[in-house]
Amino acid sequence: MNTASPIDCPSWAKLSHHAEGWRDVHLKDLFASDVARSLQFVAEAPGLRYDYSRQRLGAITLRLLANLAAERGFAEWRDALLSGKEINTSEKRAAWHTALRAGPSAPAEVLQTLDRMKGLALKLRSEGKFRRIVNLGTGGSDLGPRLLADAATDGTLDVRFAANVDPRDLERALEGADPASTLFVVVSKTFTTQETMANATAARSWLNGRKHFFAITANETAARKFDAVEILPMWDWVGGRFSVWSAVGFAAACAMGFDRFEEFLAGGREIDAHFAAAPPEKNIPVLMALAGVWNTNFLGCASHAVLPYSNALRLLPAYLQQLEMESNGKRVDRAGRAVGYPTCPVLWGAEGTPSQHSFHQLLHQGTQSVPCDFIDIAADEILSANARAQADALAFGSEDGQYPGNRPSSMLFLDRLDAKNLGRLLALYEHKVFVQGIIWNINSFDQPGVELGKIMARKILSGGK
Amino acid sequence: MNTASPIDCPSWAKLSHHAEGWRDVHLKDLFASDVARSLQFVAEAPGLRYDYSRQRLGAITLRLLANLAAERGFAEWRDALLSGKEINTSEKRAAWHTALRAGPSAPAEVLQTLDRMKGLALKLRSEGKFRRIVNLGTGGSDLGPRLLADAATDGTLDVRFAANVDPRDLERALEGADPASTLFVVVSKTFTTQETMANATAARSWLNGRKHFFAITANETAARKFDAVEILPMWDWVGGRFSVWSAVGFAAACAMGFDRFEEFLAGGREIDAHFAAAPPEKNIPVLMALAGVWNTNFLGCASHAVLPYSNALRLLPAYLQQLEMESNGKRVDRAGRAVGYPTCPVLWGAEGTPSQHSFHQLLHQGTQSVPCDFIDIAADEILSANARAQADALAFGSEDGQYPGNRPSSMLFLDRLDAKNLGRLLALYEHKVFVQGIIWNINSFDQPGVELGKIMARKILSGGK
Repeated sequence: MNTASPIDCPSWAKLSHHAEGWRDVHLKDLFASDVARSLQFVAEAPGLRYDYSRQRLGAITLRLLANLAAERGFAEWRDALLSGKEINTSEKRAAWHTALRAGPSAPAEVLQTLDRMKGLALKLRSEGKFRRIVNLGTGGSDLGPRLLADAATDGTLDVRFAANVDPRDLERALEGADPASTLFVVVSKTFTTQETMANATAARSWLNGRKHFFAITANETAARKFDAVEILPMWDWVGGRFSVWSAVGFAAACAMGFDRFEEFLAGGREIDAHFAAAPPEKNIPVLMALAGVWNTNFLGCASHAVLPYSNALRLLPAYLQQLEMESNGKRVDRAGRAVGYPTCPVLWGAEGTPSQHSFHQLLHQGTQSVPCDFIDIAADEILSANARAQADALAFGSEDGQYPGNRPSSMLFLDRLDAKNLGRLLALYEHKVFVQGIIWNINSFDQPGVELGKIMARKILSGGK
Repeated sequence: MNTASPIDCPSWAKLSHHAEGWRDVHLKDLFASDVARSLQFVAEAPGLRYDYSRQRLGAITLRLLANLAAERGFAEWRDALLSGKEINTSEKRAAWHTALRAGPSAPAEVLQTLDRMKGLALKLRSEGKFRRIVNLGTGGSDLGPRLLADAATDGTLDVRFAANVDPRDLERALEGADPASTLFVVVSKTFTTQETMANATAARSWLNGRKHFFAITANETAARKFDAVEILPMWDWVGGRFSVWSAVGFAAACAMGFDRFEEFLAGGREIDAHFAAAPPEKNIPVLMALAGVWNTNFLGCASHAVLPYSNALRLLPAYLQQLEMESNGKRVDRAGRAVGYPTCPVLWGAEGTPSQHSFHQLLHQGTQSVPCDFIDIAADEILSANARAQADALAFGSEDGQYPGNRPSSMLFLDRLDAKNLGRLLALYEHKVFVQGIIWNINSFDQPGVELGKIMARKILSGGK
């Protein structure tokens, strides 16, 4: 597959040239001169609509960007992703998270695991022995189930999370809990993660002899030795930040109910089908990726804000920080060369409307342009009006010149906030990240930059410095 | 006072020239060639130490930056801030938050208000009538007390916060609450803030006739009409994002106890004294500001990460996002001219160690350099070792070239995490923001960029678009 540098692609040079013509173009004028703009730059998928008309681009930009993706071998890479080929080349693994939500056609081990998750979650939610579930994991073993549980819990069980090696984090998760009715879910692929095992060990002592541990791990031996009473698998071919669809999502399934967890999977599956079949100009994750590449590599934007107008999605920015920055925060390409172009922008954000009273000042009137994704839940009129008003103010500015405007954003409309739309939303961003990794010629599925810090911390703790 | 453009200051041109010599200088070599570096670039204040030896700067850089501050009239501006002069010129107000923590020498209205807060907080914490306090406010009427309560609650009262107009936010804050034992603290300077009044109105209906409202406001008439049983003042000369030291901090005082709230104020006061008296090269907020200006304006960094290695400080980045970006996210200077240089970088971050398993990949190996502040609580050995290991890995990289290193960071060591150190920490960042505003020639105390969005939201809601 194509591992040439993107800057050697014919479309890259054309885009660089094309970008010069965009230097002085204002969104205000684009909308004024083309009444169809807000209909043209829109794409739909089940349950959602992506409106990127407020991005600073036109039809030619889009064609050049789509050409760039094609020149980078996008179609071939997409097939390789969806069919479970070994695309995580540095770690010699597939990145086959789509298989986790493939429905009846999923691999047998996936179906068996979902079946076991279902039985365990139903039992925990119905028998009433446990009132609190505490998920012990960090990174991908924490952020996904935490987001999902926070967004979609139905209150049947009190599901909490501890991720920090700081003992205060576990203390909070255990506030008001009774060891007799508390179950811990220890999530660690290796069952050796420092933070997770420190918290699991503290939990064991708090439990005072009770064996209230489930484990989600690839290291069954270590989990058994830790007296885990149920062990669910993690697989090599699923990266941590793509694992919420697997048994890693177990605590979330306990919080929301397994039927809704299945809806979540179904939502992801629908987006996989959309991603596999829709032509680039109607393919939402492709369009999200292309808009990002345009802003990052041709308009010079250094960061990207995600603004969910929904309290239920307050943890989405934190989830996406790992998904995007751990995947594409890389400076060495698939051929081992230092890249000569920017890759992943800094992703940040917070829930609206509170964000409006915090940092929107900088979005509107700061000296740098920060492209925004507004997540707009159409079902709430006031939230939705606020999201659109912010996007319009960013794009069009004010007549008095106080607001310069011309700041790009996209709107992602969800018809409502339910489990299925959550699945759709996360799958969109996963594929966006993948497409950008293809264009930037980086492996989005390894994470070499987390190792040195661990080694150095061990050295400092053992008195080596 | 000086409102000339900073780029016309003699030191600006010198710094631009000086920066060229830094293009290829690596932190690894700086430390290798100067064993005293880690002692030289350090400053101390009560309870804390600032180590900026891992910034990409030298003694000459520092002298030029200090000269720039002097040329911008720093000393005069500082006096004006601390003596309550009308430095918020666009709104014709002082920005006299330091008076809120001035101790016995504070203005009479401050002392009277603190006295009333003390009486009310002591009563609420001792009499047991209310078990839950819910703070209804947004922006500066939310983020400060929320951070403080989250970091320093002693559990006597269950203090919650709702800031979003999304009804889900208030629902969460009321989970498990009983109207008979729940008190609402409505915080809004005008008593008309959309989010806050929507939540207060919903709370009133939930209370079902009970008059369980305190108000923190400048609009006493509206608060009385709302049946608030106690009203504490807000003053024109305190900006929302600097108001946690005032009655706006009331919910936090309920959570932590008034004696500890007073410790918090005392910590802020100590930093005010340090800021007023220490020479620039030993003045921590000045040094933080200068390092930021160097990174932003001369080394080209677009964002800045704050990484508190402490679960208790998990809300610090959100608090600082408002403090920094609402204050300095501006493109028009004090004379009304568009600035010709970058101002406030994007501030983002999250608690360590979980951040290491999320976005540190990009910090270490992304294509842009993101200067970091590590908040290092010396009392926790493991957290502290992790923070130092990350800073070292960022600075020095790895021998195999996988980690490029040369990425700047500062360490802010706190001897422990208590109320006094919280006050010190927040006051440091306040003064840092102020100094940067002086250098950038912007008014850090208004927020013109939040108005247009409100107007447009009202227009959309009333069917105007």
